[in-house]
Amino acid sequence: MDFVSLFITDFIAQLQSPTLAFLIGGMIIAALGSELVIPESICTIIVFMLLTKIGLTGGIAIRNSNLLDMVLPALFAVITGIGVVFIARYTLAKLPKVRTVDAIATGGLFGAVSGSTMAAGLTVLEEQKIPFEAWTGALYPFMDIPALVTAIVVANIYLNKRKLKESGDSAMQESFSKQAVAAGDYPTTRQEYLSQQKDPGENKVKIWPIIEESLRGPALSAMLLGLALGLFTQPESVYKSFYDPAFRGLLSILMLVMGMEAWSRVGELRKVAQWYVVYSVIAPFIHGLIAFGLGMIAHYTMNFSMGGVVVLAVIASSSSDISGPPTLRAGIPSANPSAYIGASTAIGTPVAIGLCIPFFVGLAQAIGG
Amino acid sequence: MDFVSLFITDFIAQLQSPTLAFLIGGMIIAALGSELVIPESICTIIVFMLLTKIGLTGGIAIRNSNLLDMVLPALFAVITGIGVVFIARYTLAKLPKVRTVDAIATGGLFGAVSGSTMAAGLTVLEEQKIPFEAWTGALYPFMDIPALVTAIVVANIYLNKRKLKESGDSAMQESFSKQAVAAGDYPTTRQEYLSQQKDPGENKVKIWPIIEESLRGPALSAMLLGLALGLFTQPESVYKSFYDPAFRGLLSILMLVMGMEAWSRVGELRKVAQWYVVYSVIAPFIHGLIAFGLGMIAHYTMNFSMGGVVVLAVIASSSSDISGPPTLRAGIPSANPSAYIGASTAIGTPVAIGLCIPFFVGLAQAIGG
Amino acid sequence: MDFVSLFITDFIAQLQSPTLAFLIGGMIIAALGSELVIPESICTIIVFMLLTKIGLTGGIAIRNSNLLDMVLPALFAVITGIGVVFIARYTLAKLPKVRTVDAIATGGLFGAVSGSTMAAGLTVLEEQKIPFEAWTGALYPFMDIPALVTAIVVANIYLNKRKLKESGDSAMQESFSKQAVAAGDYPTTRQEYLSQQKDPGENKVKIWPIIEESLRGPALSAMLLGLALGLFTQPESVYKSFYDPAFRGLLSILMLVMGMEAWSRVGELRKVAQWYVVYSVIAPFIHGLIAFGLGMIAHYTMNFSMGGVVVLAVIASSSSDISGPPTLRAGIPSANPSAYIGASTAIGTPVAIGLCIPFFVGLAQAIGG
Repeated sequence: MDFVSLFITDFIAQLQSPTLAFLIGGMIIAALGSELVIPESICTIIVFMLLTKIGLTGGIAIRNSNLLDMVLPALFAVITGIGVVFIARYTLAKLPKVRTVDAIATGGLFGAVSGSTMAAGLTVLEEQKIPFEAWTGALYPFMDIPALVTAIVVANIYLNKRKLKESGDSAMQESFSKQAVAAGDYPTTRQEYLSQQKDPGENKVKIWPIIEESLRGPALSAMLLGLALGLFTQPESVYKSFYDPAFRGLLSILMLVMGMEAWSRVGELRKVAQWYVVYSVIAPFIHGLIAFGLGMIAHYTMNFSMGGVVVLAVIASSSSDISGPPTLRAGIPSANPSAYIGASTAIGTPVAIGLCIPFFVGLAQAIGG
Repeated sequence: MDFVSLFITDFIAQLQSPTLAFLIGGMIIAALGSELVIPESICTIIVFMLLTKIGLTGGIAIRNSNLLDMVLPALFAVITGIGVVFIARYTLAKLPKVRTVDAIATGGLFGAVSGSTMAAGLTVLEEQKIPFEAWTGALYPFMDIPALVTAIVVANIYLNKRKLKESGDSAMQESFSKQAVAAGDYPTTRQEYLSQQKDPGENKVKIWPIIEESLRGPALSAMLLGLALGLFTQPESVYKSFYDPAFRGLLSILMLVMGMEAWSRVGELRKVAQWYVVYSVIAPFIHGLIAFGLGMIAHYTMNFSMGGVVVLAVIASSSSDISGPPTLRAGIPSANPSAYIGASTAIGTPVAIGLCIPFFVGLAQAIGG
Repeated sequence: MDFVSLFITDFIAQLQSPTLAFLIGGMIIAALGSELVIPESICTIIVFMLLTKIGLTGGIAIRNSNLLDMVLPALFAVITGIGVVFIARYTLAKLPKVRTVDAIATGGLFGAVSGSTMAAGLTVLEEQKIPFEAWTGALYPFMDIPALVTAIVVANIYLNKRKLKESGDSAMQESFSKQAVAAGDYPTTRQEYLSQQKDPGENKVKIWPIIEESLRGPALSAMLLGLALGLFTQPESVYKSFYDPAFRGLLSILMLVMGMEAWSRVGELRKVAQWYVVYSVIAPFIHGLIAFGLGMIAHYTMNFSMGGVVVLAVIASSSSDISGPPTLRAGIPSANPSAYIGASTAIGTPVAIGLCIPFFVGLAQAIGG
């Protein structure tokens, strides 16, 4: 009883934190038809600054801390990233009117990490004065890249298998294609065209190019640049005078934009199977709870802080908004972007920021307190 | 004599304040042909941040203050906003070569409020260390919306009357149209076309859509969002670390842009009747003095601060630069935008910022000191 | 030995300073194929803010200092700016496969000043706690404008001489043209066309329009605006709350952009004679050393600070990236922009920032210490 009341009090208090308030404010003014627009170039530079700052924090922290402490949390991040894809493969993909490739791509996006959600989580922890290891931001790529790689590999294995089956059942092929279209399937011609170009030996998915593309994306580039600068140079002066003080303010603008964006994408969801809506609401909690549980193991064995456990849970509950979509579009061209981007931006992200962050912070405080 | 010398000393000192200095600097470098350009997206985000900050200030202040104190100043703001339109209707509109609809639209724009002018006024008051109620920024919509609504309603009533008269005098109609064109009138076909579409019963102007459109504009949206966040959430951390410290600096950039913009619009004034120039120079003082007088009533009866009186006068002397023009363009499509936007941007705004702010600050100090 | 070891230690330490680290970071992530992009509008506003801040600093400093102290450094700045062009005229232009007009334009660009390089130099001096006169930023136009004017005048004198010679040797003209093209020359038709339009009396180059165009460019406009505001108004409040604290952080973003830009321009260098590469590496050191030597004269005679000597050397080693190229393009239309912009952006600027700044700071510390 004490646990529940503590949790609820905390949950409500957090909705008043500037970070969550701006997100909800953005959704409300978008719903009221506001013509407010934050220019694209401003969003780009804000994302750059937030992720560079997270990278710098991580780099400076790693320089001054024991690298061994990171091993277990990083391993759990990898496990969560991979696990999320398989969860989608064996739950979402089995639901009616959901195409398997779309489900795998959605799993990849929900396994990948959103820099803004992580930034929001770190800020709420600071606002609530819950300590956490400063290097936890550096866990980002350990969950992000494995999720994207797994999704692309799993999708391609599935597509190749189906292709082989189709070749074998050439007599049934035509009727199958018609059925697929009738079932709301995205035209598979592009993928088929690509497959025909390759001979069977080339059908193995190359993993390194996917990793390379993830690392080159603007979000991870900025974060890794910050990490490297934090590790190998002395950026403290510019960190303290610029990146750190601007962080919360810039985040508030980005939260507003994400709130407005979420509202404007709601319409897209009507075009896809309603199971995406159910998945997008539930999955962030499931993923976060898995990571929270794994984080608790690190908490008891390696003295990983409760704040760090929350960070791990928050990045698990987040779904990628910047680096993920283009990587998936290139890696699984036959998946329908409306399905996975709509589910992630319109529901997954607001749920992760507005509900999961307060939920996991409350959970940590109720357990820790 | 003491009053006058006090006033003049103060006036000159204020021209050296960064806010006014950047405005004048912008006009000078534009006049010298500088190729300096501040990107559009930067101006957009600056306006957003200034108005969000004004809204946050107001919201936090209202939360901690007696709402009753606001009633009289808010009422006076409404009265001024409506009054300004009728002044234009019965002075500017009667002048030779001035079309009545253009005059009403101009009155609407000068009655509406400029967020940047208000921001400049608040900053000069702070620079001069004159205290004022923190919620005065929240008076903005109480003057802005009534002015725009009144202008659109008055213009449509006028246009309907003229239409009825024209229908009655159908014999004279053709020669009238020719006279109108000869007198430099803007083609009235679009308005006539719109009128023909409606039957007489629909000619009543609907007020709610005008209010709704005003509230949805980017300037008011940002301000009301800030107000709501200030009232209902705890934005203090982000306010103190971001919106408040950046305010003056961002304003200095915006003042520079407005100075350059004013200079570049001077050319447009040549295309319209010269009475607009006379009006744009005198009106900000008249409007400000009316509001200043009303504010003094609140000062003596309700203990409204002298700084608050100046804020009321400054928002009355300002003319809308962001939210006003599109609302008027939609509400009075037959009015000529060159007339009202040129008059406001090229003369009204620099007069309000560069002359009226120092004038009313000086007046308040001379009366108060 | 002590001198050399002091110098090397200092050099390495400076590469870890945020300013240089971000430059090198930018080159590295561009080399690794990062898709990170900093929007154009952000770069524009950063350059505006940096140069306005340098101008404000200079203006406030000049207001509070002895103007006579500036005379000798300003004179040396003019001498260096002019000298650099003549060095290019009599070294680079004599090298094989280098067109004389291209060499003169390159000299103009290397004689002109880069605001970002100067900002980086000032920041490194502050980071190393080396004192310098606050007005040294105001030396910028004293070197920049003479270099551009000299380059355009020298180029036009050269082109007129060649034109006269060509007219005299009309029999040889056709074969000469063919030789020129064979030698990798840029088509001279545009220049010839322009010359034909003018009668010989008009062939004198007008100096004032070149100066005027330099002053109107966005970089010098912003700096001179800041200078005037610093001199004649009271911008201290906005300077301390906005322009000064944001300086280093904004510079770090700009350094990143310049690093990425340098890498992306390397390809252009393949199209021009390789002597440009040699020149771009050596010239910044030579130009800086000349200015450093002249600065030492001011150090011993007028008590000009060692930090000031470094600033003079740094602006001499820099090459213009914003105001220079368009001025030269208009002033010497027959010169090939790929030659001078490629050499400057891809090599000259990174050498000046990444090597010359640490070199001259180290030199000053080794001499002074």
